[in-house]
Amino acid sequence: MKNYTVGVDFGTLSARAAVVSLTGELLGSCSADYPHGVMSGAPGQPSQGPAWALQHPEDYLQVLRQIVPEALRQAGVSPQQAAGLALDMTSCTVLPVTADGTPLCRLERFRSEPHAYVKLWKHHAAQPQAERMTRLARERQEPWLPDYGGIISSEWLFPKLAQILEEAPEVYAAADLFLEAGDWLVWQLTGALGRGRCGAGYKAFCTENEYPRDFLRAFDPRLEAGVSRLNGQLLPQDGRAGELTAQGAALTGLPIGTPVAAAHVDAHVSAAAAGVCTSGRMVMIMGTSACHMLLHEEKIPVPGICGVVKDGILPGFYGYEAGQPAVGDCFQWFLENALPGSYEEEAKRRRIGLHALLREKAARLLPGESGLLALDWWNGNRSVLNDAGLSGMLMGLTLHTRPEEIYRALLEATAFGTRKIIESFRQSGVPVDSLTALGGIPGKDPLAMQICADVLGMPVEVPESTLSPAFGSAIFAAAAAGVYPSMTAAIGAMSHPHPVIYRPDPASAAVYDQMYEEYSALHDYFGRSSAAMKRLKELAARQRSQQRGESTSC
Amino acid sequence: MKNYTVGVDFGTLSARAAVVSLTGELLGSCSADYPHGVMSGAPGQPSQGPAWALQHPEDYLQVLRQIVPEALRQAGVSPQQAAGLALDMTSCTVLPVTADGTPLCRLERFRSEPHAYVKLWKHHAAQPQAERMTRLARERQEPWLPDYGGIISSEWLFPKLAQILEEAPEVYAAADLFLEAGDWLVWQLTGALGRGRCGAGYKAFCTENEYPRDFLRAFDPRLEAGVSRLNGQLLPQDGRAGELTAQGAALTGLPIGTPVAAAHVDAHVSAAAAGVCTSGRMVMIMGTSACHMLLHEEKIPVPGICGVVKDGILPGFYGYEAGQPAVGDCFQWFLENALPGSYEEEAKRRRIGLHALLREKAARLLPGESGLLALDWWNGNRSVLNDAGLSGMLMGLTLHTRPEEIYRALLEATAFGTRKIIESFRQSGVPVDSLTALGGIPGKDPLAMQICADVLGMPVEVPESTLSPAFGSAIFAAAAAGVYPSMTAAIGAMSHPHPVIYRPDPASAAVYDQMYEEYSALHDYFGRSSAAMKRLKELAARQRSQQRGESTSC
Repeated sequence: MKNYTVGVDFGTLSARAAVVSLTGELLGSCSADYPHGVMSGAPGQPSQGPAWALQHPEDYLQVLRQIVPEALRQAGVSPQQAAGLALDMTSCTVLPVTADGTPLCRLERFRSEPHAYVKLWKHHAAQPQAERMTRLARERQEPWLPDYGGIISSEWLFPKLAQILEEAPEVYAAADLFLEAGDWLVWQLTGALGRGRCGAGYKAFCTENEYPRDFLRAFDPRLEAGVSRLNGQLLPQDGRAGELTAQGAALTGLPIGTPVAAAHVDAHVSAAAAGVCTSGRMVMIMGTSACHMLLHEEKIPVPGICGVVKDGILPGFYGYEAGQPAVGDCFQWFLENALPGSYEEEAKRRRIGLHALLREKAARLLPGESGLLALDWWNGNRSVLNDAGLSGMLMGLTLHTRPEEIYRALLEATAFGTRKIIESFRQSGVPVDSLTALGGIPGKDPLAMQICADVLGMPVEVPESTLSPAFGSAIFAAAAAGVYPSMTAAIGAMSHPHPVIYRPDPASAAVYDQMYEEYSALHDYFGRSSAAMKRLKELAARQRSQQRGESTSC
Repeated sequence: MKNYTVGVDFGTLSARAAVVSLTGELLGSCSADYPHGVMSGAPGQPSQGPAWALQHPEDYLQVLRQIVPEALRQAGVSPQQAAGLALDMTSCTVLPVTADGTPLCRLERFRSEPHAYVKLWKHHAAQPQAERMTRLARERQEPWLPDYGGIISSEWLFPKLAQILEEAPEVYAAADLFLEAGDWLVWQLTGALGRGRCGAGYKAFCTENEYPRDFLRAFDPRLEAGVSRLNGQLLPQDGRAGELTAQGAALTGLPIGTPVAAAHVDAHVSAAAAGVCTSGRMVMIMGTSACHMLLHEEKIPVPGICGVVKDGILPGFYGYEAGQPAVGDCFQWFLENALPGSYEEEAKRRRIGLHALLREKAARLLPGESGLLALDWWNGNRSVLNDAGLSGMLMGLTLHTRPEEIYRALLEATAFGTRKIIESFRQSGVPVDSLTALGGIPGKDPLAMQICADVLGMPVEVPESTLSPAFGSAIFAAAAAGVYPSMTAAIGAMSHPHPVIYRPDPASAAVYDQMYEEYSALHDYFGRSSAAMKRLKELAARQRSQQRGESTSC
């Protein structure tokens, strides 16, 4: 009898496999780091600079061969009993391949060519292409642009392809296909070329199976020509991509014929792992940045979202995404650029981390006690105001202001920014009744979560599991294998998140209501009435280019 | 033949005597620290807390006996050739004495009583009294309040007297007179009780020889009764207080009968030393805070000044004072609360100061290059907006913002604040044609001075001498002795400041003009349109008092 599924999560530095019973019990798991990690150039070649982030596709296969058999061994189950397999991956993580699926970097002539490798989601070297694309899309008033928050990110598909086209035309010409790495892996396992709906929808402007060809042609006719290399059937989120071939069986240790789901995006399988399968329950993944996901039955225009895709997260729902571009990054900036040496020494002496030290000190403060208020725009605003020209602001500074007060103000500003997003959904008629927080920060920062609950005035749920993406993939595997009639049924049967629940403290919530009014007024002043932030950023850009010019001429 | 004068500057921690020829040559000088320094309680008694700042009056006499004879010896002049003597002191630095001038702390029964000692200018323990006084003066709409910037400082006379009255009524009752320490010293030298116009005018609300009796009575009838203990003739700024008595001769080594000038305030004699004796030349003393002085022939209402006194700085002029309450204090706050350990380590390794390191790094930036802009209100605003409820603000922050960029933004904000003050004078019809910068910062911070010149679009002069207050007193001594017919003539003959002149760089000035427009818009938004800063400060005060309450009840 089939009695479990296997989920595999391909993260940024490692992959992890989970063996999960059909009633949602974690039976075994195993993880392994990618041998090449994240590279800034081709293996053995010079770095291309800090904005580059490449991976080696062989790493994925190598760890897959390790971790699935080991997870099965740990679980003490027979491979014959596997009902199905699913995997999730970061996105947009993309690679050029030949018609038979061979990665170009595997070809002798491209081994030293960085553009022949996988471009990881956080490869930012296509920023110039992204900026030119954003300008062009704005000039052309592309109708799909607002659905993506009005800005084309360098992390998305077409800027990455444009960079290959412009910097390595021979790689661009040699690529028969450009694939999300997750889709490529599913192909390797099943022999069937399909594409996850989510990568295409959220990262490649694909709506109703169509790419914006006119726009791509206007940018560069060769880029439009590349759309033909994006073929492959778009698979539904609970869909089956195929079954394990002999090659796939060898890679996983599972039997030939085991059902394999379409590839998913890590954020979305996390939502499933957390048991979220209905409208009104927002999922926030909070790490270096924050990503907010919400399901709703209808497509309603919501200001400030960065994507809405039919069936993009779960079948039967429009999947909405919104985001805050600097969360953990902003806290980290503070640690690296504004924390006095005496604090570093105290943390060292007490053998605790800097974040732990600051959390301890900041937790002793009452809401509003510092008099500080910040706007959380250290990396611009990608929600309601949707403006990369905005910047961070901190007010209320006095000669008595202490570092932990500023740190807390940054935590609070993040929560105010989240509230802005939630209120935008609500005001547009898309309900948000609860918040589930996942990712790197929620599990280890109770202060941030309590502040979030107090600011939002509603409970924040933090599921226990640290395995959530791999676990979520295992749930998708059960749906794709037909064990359950739908993803909703699969989630209902297999997800038992046992969350820690942060409930708002009424006194703190009342203070934060006042502070949120102040935040909103500043948000509208700097985001709408005054263009000061943008003018200062433009001035800075002019002065920096002058500075560079002067340096060069010296 | 009389051919020199002696000036003595009583500073916060030490006094310095200068022997200056009648043509302005520094012939000799000597300084000595006060044996008791600054005390936070009576000698040998427990500290009263960090807000307390007391001095021992015997210290003044002791150092006087040392430094004047030694400066004469160094100068190689005969005491018989001294044309006159003058002294300046910090203000409001005040002590209670008996009818014969005996300090109460010299009496056996008050030796352990802190309120019987000199309260130094920076004694801040009368803050509660100052705040109650400000509230009352506002309620009563006292007509003199705007002349003092709308806020009664805890550093001024009546809050200090009210603190004595409330906390040590027996000291208050035993005091026959309350005196500025400079006036008390002149009395010790000459046997004549007079009062410097400046201390009375700027620090004690005395206009046309009258104190605001109705107001003082409304605060506390006993405080009004204390006005009778402020008697003593108000002396003009170039006036002679008297001549050295036998006691005065013993204290200084100068002959009986040597003319002695009225006591002056250190800031004002510095202006004379720098050669400023005409309208249109602003003098800025820039240290922990900044004080701006300006002469004008008429009394014109100027928004944002913190004092205008007829003959208060030089006879024949209205002396205007304005100020920025946090300058060096704000830079120091930054160093102590927001500078990463790696910067401290670099400074240590290179054996340079933290300010020097930051200046070096900040000097490499072009104006506007960081995209940052600050409002310099870390300790409120005491100029045009005149609002202690305002706070510091920093905008333009990004994930790339570095500490030296913030440091430079603070230097720039200070200069923008100074420009606001200067423009307020100009718009009111009081011309400002040049700026002379004195005090702790100008001589050692060329970057701050260049930014100042660039922001103001006019030259900033920094005189060479570090002896300026004692030198300035020597000039006043020459006028009081009748060597010259007026202070203007004395300054013309004796002041040769040889300033370093910082001239505006046109390109930088153009960028700062743009940034000043942004500063002005933010200044008006936060200072006039929005009450956000005040509301946040009020909230903070409420939360802090709740925090204290909770701590106490634990």
